[in-house]
Amino acid sequence: MAKFLKVKTPGEVLSILDGIQPLPPEPVSLALACGRRLASDITAAEPAPHFARATMDGYAVRARDTFGASESLPSLLEISGEVLMGEAPGPPVAPGKAVDIPTGGMLPEGADAVVMVEYTSVLDNTTIEITRPVAPGENVLKSGEDIELGETLFRQGAMLRPQDVGLLAALGIVEVEVFRVPLVALISTGDEIVPVETNLLAPGKVRDINSFSLAALIKSAGARIGVQARISDRLEDLVATCQAALIDHDVIVLSGGSSAGARDYTTQVLAALPESELLVHGVAIRPGKPTIFGRAGGILFWGLPGQPVSALIICRAFVLASLRKLQGMKEPELAQACALRAVLNRQIPSVHGRTDYVPVALSRVSGGVIEASPIFGKSGAIGILARADGYVVIAEHVEGLDRGAEVSVFFF
Amino acid sequence: MAKFLKVKTPGEVLSILDGIQPLPPEPVSLALACGRRLASDITAAEPAPHFARATMDGYAVRARDTFGASESLPSLLEISGEVLMGEAPGPPVAPGKAVDIPTGGMLPEGADAVVMVEYTSVLDNTTIEITRPVAPGENVLKSGEDIELGETLFRQGAMLRPQDVGLLAALGIVEVEVFRVPLVALISTGDEIVPVETNLLAPGKVRDINSFSLAALIKSAGARIGVQARISDRLEDLVATCQAALIDHDVIVLSGGSSAGARDYTTQVLAALPESELLVHGVAIRPGKPTIFGRAGGILFWGLPGQPVSALIICRAFVLASLRKLQGMKEPELAQACALRAVLNRQIPSVHGRTDYVPVALSRVSGGVIEASPIFGKSGAIGILARADGYVVIAEHVEGLDRGAEVSVFFF
Repeated sequence: MAKFLKVKTPGEVLSILDGIQPLPPEPVSLALACGRRLASDITAAEPAPHFARATMDGYAVRARDTFGASESLPSLLEISGEVLMGEAPGPPVAPGKAVDIPTGGMLPEGADAVVMVEYTSVLDNTTIEITRPVAPGENVLKSGEDIELGETLFRQGAMLRPQDVGLLAALGIVEVEVFRVPLVALISTGDEIVPVETNLLAPGKVRDINSFSLAALIKSAGARIGVQARISDRLEDLVATCQAALIDHDVIVLSGGSSAGARDYTTQVLAALPESELLVHGVAIRPGKPTIFGRAGGILFWGLPGQPVSALIICRAFVLASLRKLQGMKEPELAQACALRAVLNRQIPSVHGRTDYVPVALSRVSGGVIEASPIFGKSGAIGILARADGYVVIAEHVEGLDRGAEVSVFFF
Repeated sequence: MAKFLKVKTPGEVLSILDGIQPLPPEPVSLALACGRRLASDITAAEPAPHFARATMDGYAVRARDTFGASESLPSLLEISGEVLMGEAPGPPVAPGKAVDIPTGGMLPEGADAVVMVEYTSVLDNTTIEITRPVAPGENVLKSGEDIELGETLFRQGAMLRPQDVGLLAALGIVEVEVFRVPLVALISTGDEIVPVETNLLAPGKVRDINSFSLAALIKSAGARIGVQARISDRLEDLVATCQAALIDHDVIVLSGGSSAGARDYTTQVLAALPESELLVHGVAIRPGKPTIFGRAGGILFWGLPGQPVSALIICRAFVLASLRKLQGMKEPELAQACALRAVLNRQIPSVHGRTDYVPVALSRVSGGVIEASPIFGKSGAIGILARADGYVVIAEHVEGLDRGAEVSVFFF
């Protein structure tokens, strides 16, 4: 393993993560499929709708029988029947006839359009007046017009949303193959770290923030937490815990103590694991520079700074990206880029060659404008993130942002 | 109950929903608190950090001992000790002395700043050279500098995010009072609706899409699904099922059959329930106009269109808002307004006086621009939503959007 690697840019780290292969597939029932990613393409085994149906309440007609109809010269048609919801329609609609049909009702043969009830009036029990013409196909969803037989509905790697689950339900697909969800071992280390339950902190001690904040963030990305451990800074203990985690976990996330040299400690842990490879050793980002990424025994290994703010930002920026890749995400997705536009109310300094993640608080000001106030604070202050609504990213080639600049705010 | 109410604007509906009171509070352990909303304000019972700590690796010093230091004329200090992570520091730092300290280490008495290790060099075992001055407080997080004792950390109604959970962990808070999560009864009705498992659809029948798509969306908002039923369009059956749901649910969501008159059917169901009140009877929105909202027996009652696209859009626009209010959300939150800016590649017509929700597909075009293509399709085509990345809202007073217009796209 290389003793030292050049600090990488965030873009270089994401390129490395692009090479992550998804976990093996597993079947899941449709009711539990939302949020999961497909392990294979899905094609339509039947068309949708599978019959031509009305999209409005009205009368099924032959469109040509309405051509030229107007308020002053309505077309007169004879009502020859009624379609009931969920029932096969009666005999074909003959020329000059109309059949009462509800929204969603199956179009009878012969008819090729539906006149909205608003443009009709009933003259007597058997005759209606139509005051507007309809074109063929109007107010009708034809068989296969929504989904064609054999059409590719979803590509491998797509994450199923509620509407996608709805489409699968429409086609009678009750089980799908999805990529397995990653199981993450979450380890906090540091001689200063004590359990959260600790009531009175001894001098120099701090409570184990990362076990809670990182677990919450990782779970929000759909992954599961397996082993969760708090370990003092002893190399053998860390190696032993990681080694045990290799057996059944997919990712190890080790948030290192913030003690001096902790960074190298994490690389030593990685080096001591079987088949290990150090891929990232430092990222040109603030906060979070001492970030480590590699592989060991076929699973992913993250070494995050112990400092809670840095750990959370790195987890959001990179660890979640790796979890999405394990779940089969293929391309960067636009939803990940979802940001609110806001105006900076204060200048943010930044250094060329480093990407800065700056927490901001948002407020609405007059005229519907949203103002972003950068929250500067010292490293280690978890309160900064709790006060922030989101963060602004200052790219490596940008030297700070001026007051009044329009920025994209990503929500935490 | 009024026979007929004027169709409401989306803004009027949201104002009505603003009056919804949160469900009773319940305690939850911190590990499960992410995503929940606080039932009461939380104040800090201790400061954070509770001791002054170094935010950089370096040397704890008295700042004035470094004043005037430069590359050409460094200050010389004597190393008088070392702070260990998680340990109480040794004796106070005397004038002219420096104490080795790691990031996160507890600042010894006497010291008021930390010189970063980068600006020091060790001359011999006991002496360091300092090449840059530090100001008092530099590279030190003072006790209470992050969180003051007694400071209000979170307001009632705030939703806890991973970093908020982290802050609570920092302060040793292991359990919080949150508002109970709503239990939703989800009922699909319609004579044409058959179970999703149905292999061969009889003429006129469609599978029960809404039970899957609405359940997925409701669960994504943190609510739970209780009773889930598919019922044919018989008033007595619907009333009986809703009446049973009143006992232990917080919300009834009835997605009506799309049969003619279904809209009035839903109001009849509501009217037949005890202590019922119709608050919204139609919304000036497309799709989803025949939406009903009211109360019955102290719980919320939604009547959604049976048409799957309309039902999903109304659920996202209004039902989720009501679920957030039940969970204690107070103000509209900016995260709900999170949208991607895109450029329309086609004109969208719209009618004055109606709010349109138009599904769009997004694509990246050259120059980093994101293009939004409106997906027009006939009502009832669930495939539209599956093809869409998000939607554009055309406000009631806007008559359509031109090609090239910049729009906010909300992700589905």
